[in-house]
Amino acid sequence: MNVLIIGAGGMIGRKLATKLASSPVLNGQEVRHLHLVDVFEPSAPLDTPCRVLTEAADVSAPGEAARLLANRPDIIFHLAAIVSGEAETDFEKGYRINLDGTLNLLEAIRQDASYCPKLIFASSIAVFGAPLPAPIPDTFHLTPQTSYGTQKAICELLLSDYSRKGFVDGIALRLPTIVVRPGKPNKAASGFFSGIIREPLNGQEAVLPVADDTLHWMASPRAAVSFFLHAASLDTADMTGGRAVTLPGLAVSVAEELDILRKIGGEARIKLIKRVADPLVEQIVAAWPRQFDASRALSLGFAPDESFEAIVRSYIEDEGISI
Amino acid sequence: MNVLIIGAGGMIGRKLATKLASSPVLNGQEVRHLHLVDVFEPSAPLDTPCRVLTEAADVSAPGEAARLLANRPDIIFHLAAIVSGEAETDFEKGYRINLDGTLNLLEAIRQDASYCPKLIFASSIAVFGAPLPAPIPDTFHLTPQTSYGTQKAICELLLSDYSRKGFVDGIALRLPTIVVRPGKPNKAASGFFSGIIREPLNGQEAVLPVADDTLHWMASPRAAVSFFLHAASLDTADMTGGRAVTLPGLAVSVAEELDILRKIGGEARIKLIKRVADPLVEQIVAAWPRQFDASRALSLGFAPDESFEAIVRSYIEDEGISI
Repeated sequence: MNVLIIGAGGMIGRKLATKLASSPVLNGQEVRHLHLVDVFEPSAPLDTPCRVLTEAADVSAPGEAARLLANRPDIIFHLAAIVSGEAETDFEKGYRINLDGTLNLLEAIRQDASYCPKLIFASSIAVFGAPLPAPIPDTFHLTPQTSYGTQKAICELLLSDYSRKGFVDGIALRLPTIVVRPGKPNKAASGFFSGIIREPLNGQEAVLPVADDTLHWMASPRAAVSFFLHAASLDTADMTGGRAVTLPGLAVSVAEELDILRKIGGEARIKLIKRVADPLVEQIVAAWPRQFDASRALSLGFAPDESFEAIVRSYIEDEGISI
Repeated sequence: MNVLIIGAGGMIGRKLATKLASSPVLNGQEVRHLHLVDVFEPSAPLDTPCRVLTEAADVSAPGEAARLLANRPDIIFHLAAIVSGEAETDFEKGYRINLDGTLNLLEAIRQDASYCPKLIFASSIAVFGAPLPAPIPDTFHLTPQTSYGTQKAICELLLSDYSRKGFVDGIALRLPTIVVRPGKPNKAASGFFSGIIREPLNGQEAVLPVADDTLHWMASPRAAVSFFLHAASLDTADMTGGRAVTLPGLAVSVAEELDILRKIGGEARIKLIKRVADPLVEQIVAAWPRQFDASRALSLGFAPDESFEAIVRSYIEDEGISI
């Protein structure tokens, strides 16, 4: 079995590639070839029986999608995107990478009439926009309030239509916010949900810009990887009502995050959190979805993290943090 | 004020052009220039004080959208599309006309930084797909089950995003099925909803392929024209939750259609209806939306037809049918 990961240099892409390289079985079949692509050449996982090919490529450039399919991958994970903030400030680049890139891929697949791979596409809860009920049902409409969310929603519609026509076998996964993100703090408005765990566990200060009762929809990187792998082996024959699935995250409050930090890291870690209210961040976060009824995903076998404590413990384990 | 109608040769486009030509006032301002465009040169309305320009143009062709905007129309009605059946059989043509055409128009508008026209886009209830509740709320998700519906849903998302960014001031109108369509019978699966009124009123036989309790969401051509004119004068500042509006139709059963035909045309007309059950048409119609809660449109001032009787009487009046 051949597997192609587009966006293999990103945080989830790297973890997905590492997982497949070390456990090269998908849907009961051996993964022999692993093709890892990103705009910068991604690193190759070590210690794997797979033949690994890494390369830099931009799927939004003419002809690149068709070239990447020359090896006819059985399963394609498409995670390449520019993030919400950049898609908002650079309108043309956002549409080129996040919409044209996906469309190029779908078209290259359609052009080959005898080829119908599984395509797992990374969508986002950014397809939803306020006013939002709590919890948000699977049948709630999409009114994205960013260009990024709009591009993801359009790709979902394309994926469903190309799948309905039998050109591809697609699934779009609406990922929760990934917490705890490893690495350095970034400037994403949602960054503090990871920061208030990650920085104190590293003995560093973290800023908390919102109130303790702020609720957010989260999943661990480990859960995110498991969602992609589960989607790859899912029988899509029963997916009536479109190919996009809102995944089961956990609705976690800042207060619960702090309780778990205290439980795992002790009171000294809590003292590293500086409360600096930020009305702009509060306003952005207030417009985000907080809680979903993810019944459809659960019935399709997608499993959420066990608890926020399990999320933090998986971070400590996966990143080799010493407490 | 300059007005551009793209798709001015279609049934609604013609009626809209005729209405504007005879009552050339929009939003309290005089319409001086009326630019009528379709893939075939549309006919020019007679007896109008407007300067009328008619021409054949395909907005999906490179450069054509920008050329059509040279006169900087204040209001653009975009009704051009290929219909559901053709978009389903000719996948590439459907995406080219129904998606690329609209995208070309939006891009041509965006490229001119000092220009922000009102753009009223003809969408469709084909953006919805089974399983559907009854009535369908304004917040129900879009799971189109045709490429046509997919293309309309994508254009709605683009229109909302381009409007949010301030490039255009857009509104997408999800039109009900238009009944009574004037003219000859066509092969659309929904054609019989018009046919069972139109043909008997013309003394001709009509085939009824579904059961009497079949419910459908309808509006008259006259209501459709009024929706476009109302949208042109609407203040969009309060349109939170996207720029697409499900318009208020009437949920009418076949039984009610027959009652009104009997009331207006007498028992002899009813006898012209031949019941020939068609399982394929029944299946297609069963997957269509039947009834909406169109609260949002009503609160924005869109007004439905008074009754199905009023729909039939407006058809008789507008088309000069003698009973």
